[in-house]
Amino acid sequence: MPDDVQFQSVAAFRSLLVSMPGTSREAADLARLRNSELTKPPGALGRLEELAIWYASWRGTAAPRVKDPQAIVFAANHGVTAQGVSAFPAEVTAQMVGNFRQGGAAINQMCRANGLRLSVLELDLARPVRDFTQTTAMDEAELCQALTVGWNAVDPVADLLVTGEMGIGNTTSAAAIATALFGGHAADWAGRGTGVDDAGMSRKISAIERGIACNIAALDDPLHVLAAFGGREIAAMAGAIARARTERIPVILDGFICGAAAAVLHEAHAGMLDHCVAGHVSAEGGHPALLERIGKKPILDLGMRLGEGSGAALAVAVLRAALECHTGMATFAEAAVSGRT
Amino acid sequence: MPDDVQFQSVAAFRSLLVSMPGTSREAADLARLRNSELTKPPGALGRLEELAIWYASWRGTAAPRVKDPQAIVFAANHGVTAQGVSAFPAEVTAQMVGNFRQGGAAINQMCRANGLRLSVLELDLARPVRDFTQTTAMDEAELCQALTVGWNAVDPVADLLVTGEMGIGNTTSAAAIATALFGGHAADWAGRGTGVDDAGMSRKISAIERGIACNIAALDDPLHVLAAFGGREIAAMAGAIARARTERIPVILDGFICGAAAAVLHEAHAGMLDHCVAGHVSAEGGHPALLERIGKKPILDLGMRLGEGSGAALAVAVLRAALECHTGMATFAEAAVSGRT
Repeated sequence: MPDDVQFQSVAAFRSLLVSMPGTSREAADLARLRNSELTKPPGALGRLEELAIWYASWRGTAAPRVKDPQAIVFAANHGVTAQGVSAFPAEVTAQMVGNFRQGGAAINQMCRANGLRLSVLELDLARPVRDFTQTTAMDEAELCQALTVGWNAVDPVADLLVTGEMGIGNTTSAAAIATALFGGHAADWAGRGTGVDDAGMSRKISAIERGIACNIAALDDPLHVLAAFGGREIAAMAGAIARARTERIPVILDGFICGAAAAVLHEAHAGMLDHCVAGHVSAEGGHPALLERIGKKPILDLGMRLGEGSGAALAVAVLRAALECHTGMATFAEAAVSGRT
Repeated sequence: MPDDVQFQSVAAFRSLLVSMPGTSREAADLARLRNSELTKPPGALGRLEELAIWYASWRGTAAPRVKDPQAIVFAANHGVTAQGVSAFPAEVTAQMVGNFRQGGAAINQMCRANGLRLSVLELDLARPVRDFTQTTAMDEAELCQALTVGWNAVDPVADLLVTGEMGIGNTTSAAAIATALFGGHAADWAGRGTGVDDAGMSRKISAIERGIACNIAALDDPLHVLAAFGGREIAAMAGAIARARTERIPVILDGFICGAAAAVLHEAHAGMLDHCVAGHVSAEGGHPALLERIGKKPILDLGMRLGEGSGAALAVAVLRAALECHTGMATFAEAAVSGRT
């Protein structure tokens, strides 16, 4: 795989999805064996044991640790904000990028607390994607550009990836994607986002309904859905999650918007999210149902709904602890501890 | 408070419970104000916001961080193992203490991963508490000694406490305490512990039932319940949790056995656990119901059931992240980010 790719067509991206690497069965078996020998009752670390074996199987080593996790926050703007769907003005996207660069946002603290390095990438903030109630948010060239940015943003030497986002209006975009991919009513997938009131919520649901009607031709293809409803940051997350798979870098998914990006990949190719776990279930309305659709059980459930990758970055602490236990604990033989009677 | 106390009577310990310090309302108000000004939608950090304000209110400062958390593992042995209630032999308690000292157990990895210092204290391992199916597990002097060990084990300069335990047979002891405190059937509170089979489970339930019948006179007083069913490590955890309150050191509770120690304090004096949060809900049968009885909502739910303080030590990562956000994030004014429209 060349260091920097440039997707010229959606077909080029699509063709990569069907030829992705899988896990190492040998590493998984060895990790499972090691897990069974550690000084604890069988199964007593619960989900941590599953996480350790899953991570080992992707990294191809029986006793790995997380040493260099990367968080990437993609920022972009949304034409659909013209429909009055957000509680905050669109200028906040760029202002928050400034906050990320100054170290003042939640994701900065999460990354510092949990040992992630943070990359921040803005995608044409001055040029929002088009309002999907009027037309498709992105044309093919724009989608390819956003996928490319995401793909190239992943550092192949990282050993864990968290993707996050900032984009006023993007819970509307994500809810439209979920509605388009999974059906149901817009109201099933739309949530309060940054905190819209009831009138804003009505406008949001209406915008999604009108967007679906306007982009009906896109609904039969997940990548067309992504182009139709945007935004650039969601496409970039999809590109980054796919790239991570090529490098066998496990991914911790964040909340609803990251989940929408992941869902596009999941619907485009079965098994495309096998290298991903859900870091948390957010308080954003549609997230629990979305996780069910992509078959992911969240690690954390703390009522977070901030985006930026914040929930996933926090879940890194759980995965790291799982691996510290898996790799650092003594076996019954090493510690001379008696087994079961 | 003198550096080292020695409880001479249960009455002496009891009298301390009614004169414990509370929170700082001023710090709580300032923390709540600060939280409302941070660069995020209101409430978007969910439970983390509650945790930060709770911690600030106990530490008496609006913008605290966790800098010096202490984990203490108390180890003790149980006469009730004679009833065949555990999947592991009693010698494992001492062997695991060796493992703790060598750094090979799960709690060692959790503490290293999450920046806690670990103290390990063994309580008369060669002298198990008496079999509570035959008599009371501890007399008053023995209970006082265990409470004293726990009390003195807390370092007053620590800014967060996790209490854990090791003691083959102690889920039986904890389930007996829960049955004695809260009523219901032994089968409602007994779980699989380290993994007893169905026959072991029957012996465990029978032992609790016989223990309740044998110690019926103790049931009207939570501290008598603690003496009746033991063990020393559970009493030591109760002593440590109480001591932490006197120093305004917040506590993260671990699983079912730690919960039983906390429940004794809760039943002995209303509000005694206000300085505690539940780090996780364990997979041990009675833990969800116990958390409900003591009014605590767990931070994590990962199917862990290892003890040692391992779930609580992992939850430190969540509390630390909450405080890093609370104390480290920029305000809207500092970051020049626009507020709601």
